[in-house]
Amino acid sequence: MDSERHLIERVAKKLPSRIGGGLRVGIGDDAAVMRPRKGSEWVLTTDAFLENVHFQLRLHPPEAVGYKALARATSDLAAMGARPRYFLLSLALPPSCTGKWFDRFLEGMSRAARGFGLVLAGGDTTKNPLAAINLTVIGEVPPGQAVLRSGARPGNLICVSGTLGEAELGLRLLQRGWGKFSAGPSSELRVNKWSPNPRKKWVRLLRKHFYPEPRLALGEWLAKNRRATAMIDTSDGLSTDLAHLCEASGVGARVWAHRIPRVAVPNEIRKLGLDPLRLALDGGEDYELLFTVPRRTARRLPRVVRGVPITVIGEITRGKHILLMDGAGRTKTLPAQGWDPFRVRM
Amino acid sequence: MDSERHLIERVAKKLPSRIGGGLRVGIGDDAAVMRPRKGSEWVLTTDAFLENVHFQLRLHPPEAVGYKALARATSDLAAMGARPRYFLLSLALPPSCTGKWFDRFLEGMSRAARGFGLVLAGGDTTKNPLAAINLTVIGEVPPGQAVLRSGARPGNLICVSGTLGEAELGLRLLQRGWGKFSAGPSSELRVNKWSPNPRKKWVRLLRKHFYPEPRLALGEWLAKNRRATAMIDTSDGLSTDLAHLCEASGVGARVWAHRIPRVAVPNEIRKLGLDPLRLALDGGEDYELLFTVPRRTARRLPRVVRGVPITVIGEITRGKHILLMDGAGRTKTLPAQGWDPFRVRM
Repeated sequence: MDSERHLIERVAKKLPSRIGGGLRVGIGDDAAVMRPRKGSEWVLTTDAFLENVHFQLRLHPPEAVGYKALARATSDLAAMGARPRYFLLSLALPPSCTGKWFDRFLEGMSRAARGFGLVLAGGDTTKNPLAAINLTVIGEVPPGQAVLRSGARPGNLICVSGTLGEAELGLRLLQRGWGKFSAGPSSELRVNKWSPNPRKKWVRLLRKHFYPEPRLALGEWLAKNRRATAMIDTSDGLSTDLAHLCEASGVGARVWAHRIPRVAVPNEIRKLGLDPLRLALDGGEDYELLFTVPRRTARRLPRVVRGVPITVIGEITRGKHILLMDGAGRTKTLPAQGWDPFRVRM
Repeated sequence: MDSERHLIERVAKKLPSRIGGGLRVGIGDDAAVMRPRKGSEWVLTTDAFLENVHFQLRLHPPEAVGYKALARATSDLAAMGARPRYFLLSLALPPSCTGKWFDRFLEGMSRAARGFGLVLAGGDTTKNPLAAINLTVIGEVPPGQAVLRSGARPGNLICVSGTLGEAELGLRLLQRGWGKFSAGPSSELRVNKWSPNPRKKWVRLLRKHFYPEPRLALGEWLAKNRRATAMIDTSDGLSTDLAHLCEASGVGARVWAHRIPRVAVPNEIRKLGLDPLRLALDGGEDYELLFTVPRRTARRLPRVVRGVPITVIGEITRGKHILLMDGAGRTKTLPAQGWDPFRVRM
């Protein structure tokens, strides 16, 4: 059985955790000590990632668990336009996850940390029958530059980055047994009869569910250039996250269904009842940015920023209603049917 | 079934969470935004508090769960000499804990937050079969004033605040069925035949296990007056926490057993095999401060600081050994037998 100390040593070795820059005291003391940069504001968020709620050991490769735990939390910084700096890792693990699984978990988390520019500043480890991971991520933003949920105004156009519904499609396929990972380091996918060349195709369709990419560069660009009046990341699903944004801003919205950039569902699996529009509207965990821009500046908004496509999908309205308009101009209410952990679904 | 939104509304209502001071954006957005005070360093720590690892729903009143979750994390700030400012709360709860239990939990956490001077800045809620709580606490300290574990030097005297072993005694009695709390708001204790006036006595003996007091004022005083060369809080137990401090400082220690301020075990329960010295050496969760002071300034150290007694219990030595010396001058090795979540105990 591993001691807590040995686990912490492995964490320190695998994850970027060097003292320097603003970090005066890192892991190994009672708390981390940081010196904020002059004239900056700090942006902080905390996020739980729990076995059997957010992931399953038999379905998710350890690398994806480590990567995604950090990516989810960091996406909240992207949604504020902040630049990631440090993170704190709280780890509760069953003894079965302290061996090889743990090395692979750290591998995935290390990839995320380096990719996002994060340094581990502190943490906590304990034993628990189920894996329970909590991330606290700390970022910086110039004073007054953070983009809030509450700044959307009637007439603003609604934009979204990337493609919606991809992560949900991956999750649905995974739940249907389309990807079952071996315990080995190669993360092999079992062959499934549905597809002619299943392995390659599945890897592609599962990628966004396993390895979402927080839109950090886009978020920072929007904040720095003061292009967005309000912003949120699509963690719960467009219908729910747009409702959050509208509520915080005290406005309504009209979304043009045919404009929504939605997941491509391969023909051979359409028969599974996977509707691209539904996946795009209510599917969670894409971690794209949903933001609003003044109509007069919308024209000057590039279609692609830092490699990420941006699509105008609707407009902010007076009142409180959120409506979905189809290609023929018919509107209906768009209910918030994304992810709510305390609401029973399906 | 409660929605996530309704839970968050109750949190915001019960816990201090007002925008102002350095807090620009609090709960309700993607992340919190804070403006650090000029010329201050930030001290951050994260801490999990898990059902069936750190507490049990049938043994611990909800108020104590809420209070202690925050107190444990805040004690790490006391150990750095920092002043608490903000906290982030990550809550995973079973549906059975979202009703009356949750109100009482928030009651206890609110008492802790107000007592420690903490404002809730953000959080995360989700559903989970077992309660899993994670706290991130943020404090401030003047630059360079944080007291680390690594500053102890040979010849320094070792000091401890308060009395050791009290929390462990409470835990042992609780585990033996000495305190079983009703689900009602009065937190009634069941009568036990051991004691002539059990209820009062138990409340006293269980208090430190349920409601530990982070030594914030003492920690800040020691840091501000630069009295302590190294400091740690006794969360795992004296024998283990002293080993942590010595390892970080690259030193050894000699502890005088007869000087250790230890829990008073009532005569009528001595027969349960509860040895006060063992409880004081290896019992965790007292959340007292263990610190070292230069010998030449030790004489000027008050015996009581901000109402908390301080006792000199040993000295720092060269080498790596940690020794326990009894009243007759006999020494033996003091093994680290406090709490290690990944080591099998008993």
